[in-house]
Amino acid sequence: MDAKSEVKAIVFDVFGTVVDWRGSTIAELTSFARGRGLAIDCTAFADAWRGLYQPSMEEVRSGRRPFTILDDLHRESLLKLLDTFGVTGLGAHEIEHLVTIWHRLAPWPDMPGGLERLNSRVITGTLSNGNIGLLTRLAKFGRLPFNVILGAEASRAYKPTPEAYLRTAAILNLKPSELMLAAAHNGDLAAAAATGLRTAFIVRPTEKGPSQAVDLKAEQAWDVVTDSCHGLATAMGCAM
Amino acid sequence: MDAKSEVKAIVFDVFGTVVDWRGSTIAELTSFARGRGLAIDCTAFADAWRGLYQPSMEEVRSGRRPFTILDDLHRESLLKLLDTFGVTGLGAHEIEHLVTIWHRLAPWPDMPGGLERLNSRVITGTLSNGNIGLLTRLAKFGRLPFNVILGAEASRAYKPTPEAYLRTAAILNLKPSELMLAAAHNGDLAAAAATGLRTAFIVRPTEKGPSQAVDLKAEQAWDVVTDSCHGLATAMGCAM
Repeated sequence: MDAKSEVKAIVFDVFGTVVDWRGSTIAELTSFARGRGLAIDCTAFADAWRGLYQPSMEEVRSGRRPFTILDDLHRESLLKLLDTFGVTGLGAHEIEHLVTIWHRLAPWPDMPGGLERLNSRVITGTLSNGNIGLLTRLAKFGRLPFNVILGAEASRAYKPTPEAYLRTAAILNLKPSELMLAAAHNGDLAAAAATGLRTAFIVRPTEKGPSQAVDLKAEQAWDVVTDSCHGLATAMGCAM
Repeated sequence: MDAKSEVKAIVFDVFGTVVDWRGSTIAELTSFARGRGLAIDCTAFADAWRGLYQPSMEEVRSGRRPFTILDDLHRESLLKLLDTFGVTGLGAHEIEHLVTIWHRLAPWPDMPGGLERLNSRVITGTLSNGNIGLLTRLAKFGRLPFNVILGAEASRAYKPTPEAYLRTAAILNLKPSELMLAAAHNGDLAAAAATGLRTAFIVRPTEKGPSQAVDLKAEQAWDVVTDSCHGLATAMGCAM
């Protein structure tokens, strides 16, 4: 059966695919640093924070530490970086303000309308390494009409561990082939496809900044290849 | 602090509070029985099915069986009742059609609009014994704009076990006093209040049929007592 006929739900990778994590974290860090009189390179800080994302999850994936939600990993990484960048004396409220920058990331402009269209035909949701509290606030902040918030916390497994994909399908009472992952990252899609999920690549050529060198094109024959959520909705046969 | 100022999220009991499970199951069973030429008392069947709900969950709550999602408990109860009512020869698709009646329950008319109002001020979600796949479809079927789908499957505990309430607050990064349960059942609210949650009683005087004798009034001083989701939205200071 083709993807359009078989897919009952589409779940989205979030950081990079749905929201512009880099632009938003740089903007929030810049605003905070200005208000606090801190002379730090906020672009370098944002990239370094994201740089600690995979290593922090790898501690969980490898079994070296028990499942830990992303808010806690973000906080640990932040504390390391504040030290590296020589920032001292922040209060607990300021630390929480910075950790929850990841709850206030702006969506790419095509997302709210594209999801609205997809909702007329399929279940839409998240399949993110973010925790449920983070993703719920992010969806509300960006007025993103997801039907369900799923991901690592629900499946107790960080992507690209196979269970992250398979348990998400099971939670939705679906066979893997009835579930599609939409993502801007070829590696995420490859792991999803290996477990039997359908795949949609949404290219986000500036996610990692103006000189992005990866994920600029589809590296395999994904079921859908597009440059926006509207393109995905059209491919799935949704009305405008 | 008063509830209106402190509450950051409101989660709803679903069967009876958000949706008219009894009217919908009777209507679906009646339609199915007519199409199949079955002479069964559909009202008695619906009430008997719901009658097996608490005993089936009690097997899990007591620890006599591992956590099992409600769709599976509903299926087991259905098979027992088909036998009791002398219905034989149904195919696998027909059984699934009947089990998923619980995915297609009509909301009380005040719910979609009331939730829309609440969404302007707080996070809204479910805190139901239904599983995530069931609740996601139910919300979509009834156009209920919940921000997040939570409940027994997310907390791995059936209400009124304390963990069902406490883990829901934790998943949402909230203190118990920042989370409110809205329910039509005094017992559910009492269990939630015992764990520190805020409480809203929404009376649903015909949930159990025209001669309902329980839950016709608030049995304790809940934070909010009302007869609709709009009443709750008004109590929480939401604009019309």
